[in-house]
Amino acid sequence: MNQLVGGIEAGGTKFVCAVGTGPDDVRAEVRFPTIAPAETIGRAIDFFRQQQVEHGPLAAIGIAAFGPLDPQPGSPTFGTITTTPKPGWRDTDFVGPVQRALRLPVGFDTDVNVAAVGEARWGAAQGLDSFIYLTIGTGIGGGGLIGGQLLHGLIHPEMGHIRLPHDRQADPYPGCCPFHGDCLEGLASGPAIEGRWGQPAATLAVDHPAWALEAEYLALAVVNFVCTLSPQRIVLGGGVMDQQHLFPLVRRKVQQYLAGYVQSPAILDRIADYIVPPGLGSRAGVLGALALAQQQLG
Amino acid sequence: MNQLVGGIEAGGTKFVCAVGTGPDDVRAEVRFPTIAPAETIGRAIDFFRQQQVEHGPLAAIGIAAFGPLDPQPGSPTFGTITTTPKPGWRDTDFVGPVQRALRLPVGFDTDVNVAAVGEARWGAAQGLDSFIYLTIGTGIGGGGLIGGQLLHGLIHPEMGHIRLPHDRQADPYPGCCPFHGDCLEGLASGPAIEGRWGQPAATLAVDHPAWALEAEYLALAVVNFVCTLSPQRIVLGGGVMDQQHLFPLVRRKVQQYLAGYVQSPAILDRIADYIVPPGLGSRAGVLGALALAQQQLG
Repeated sequence: MNQLVGGIEAGGTKFVCAVGTGPDDVRAEVRFPTIAPAETIGRAIDFFRQQQVEHGPLAAIGIAAFGPLDPQPGSPTFGTITTTPKPGWRDTDFVGPVQRALRLPVGFDTDVNVAAVGEARWGAAQGLDSFIYLTIGTGIGGGGLIGGQLLHGLIHPEMGHIRLPHDRQADPYPGCCPFHGDCLEGLASGPAIEGRWGQPAATLAVDHPAWALEAEYLALAVVNFVCTLSPQRIVLGGGVMDQQHLFPLVRRKVQQYLAGYVQSPAILDRIADYIVPPGLGSRAGVLGALALAQQQLG
Repeated sequence: MNQLVGGIEAGGTKFVCAVGTGPDDVRAEVRFPTIAPAETIGRAIDFFRQQQVEHGPLAAIGIAAFGPLDPQPGSPTFGTITTTPKPGWRDTDFVGPVQRALRLPVGFDTDVNVAAVGEARWGAAQGLDSFIYLTIGTGIGGGGLIGGQLLHGLIHPEMGHIRLPHDRQADPYPGCCPFHGDCLEGLASGPAIEGRWGQPAATLAVDHPAWALEAEYLALAVVNFVCTLSPQRIVLGGGVMDQQHLFPLVRRKVQQYLAGYVQSPAILDRIADYIVPPGLGSRAGVLGALALAQQQLG
């Protein structure tokens, strides 16, 4: 299982590429900006080639990518980034060039599904077969394992775009999602916090009312995910969740909104172990990509 | 696969028990009111014993039950109805007495998960491995297959209790859920329609404004389930959905609320095949119980 592999965390603004066998053995890592597909993917391939010279052959590559994308092996468009609004990246074959250049098995999934793989392998979701991983940052996304399998289905989830109660008298901010206005991402992403309060989220004091409101939207979202998926745990990552003081606020409001309806000790008595930060912190994506690569080896 | 089996659809007000091999071969069926557990379960057992005398041995029993319940084989409380508010039924072992009396393999799951099994086997979800089944009636519930497996996780979903946008100026009705007020069930179940408009849903004319509002809540719920689970199809059953004119309204509003964000032809071009009535109609539960029984035979 612990063969030397490569991982790519392909974000909308930067790529992180790493080579290693796990969190305690990352042999090399590089970051560079996401520019045009051919250059950016080419740079990742060059990095892995160079690492193979230094550290010996890699056994597989795992890719955690921004989406929407096609994660279904066997589909004619498997391995492509599909309908993204990101200029130049629409209908970009990502797996194909990597596979042809390196001649290795390549795993490919959404950034959040791959982060979930990392958390299941080495982080806060070890031993669980049904949990979700949410990232709350520039955007909001979610993935996870259900019955031991990554969530796919029609395409893959877009958890950031669920609709929530929005009291426009208490919070007149209209939301910042270009598609939906006040969906979860429109109300609770980093840019939404900045748009509502006129300053970057990271500069708001711990006692600023922004955080109680943020916790309310996140709690409503968590309640909806609990009622829809019945996960065994919910991992909340992403830049906004670096505000650790959000966790107790979210947990309390989740209990309050569920109102005792889901009678599980995990929620009623042990919620601090139910709604948790990622065990791998901000490294869940790139380490998840290594774990996904190792999964390709059966 | 098509051995003679028994199925129980155990609802909060009535039990339906059937013996057969599938939708075209139901040999016997009986209905009786849900009273105290020992009497009601005993009556089901008596029915199956008598059927075995008439039709020969049954190979297994499937049970579709109201919940909350424990559907996880291997759990110490597997086969019990757990925290239900229904008088007398809390912590009732359902599978145990059936298994002891009939000495047969017994399958046990939520009414909606079992209806989903029926739809997958003989109804509107044949060939799909990720879809959801929602019932909109006296209550609202949802289940389904994700990656080919029934949705369980921490317990099982409670899809009727998600929170949705509720414009109290346009719709001042506070909702009727005793736990959450204006959750999905509180806003859109049969009793909610009756409570809001002062007359039973079934007596409201097709052009009554009740239906546009109902379609709006159902569409918001479907949007949230699409964004969370990415199902390949959504089956809408239950008494409220006997109003067939709701389907086009819900479909149109789902497209409107998703606003092109989920770029799948299933949603953009073929939504009439994406949001559908149950192929087995109101028989999905009891026939699903037969299908669940047959699944116990490997």
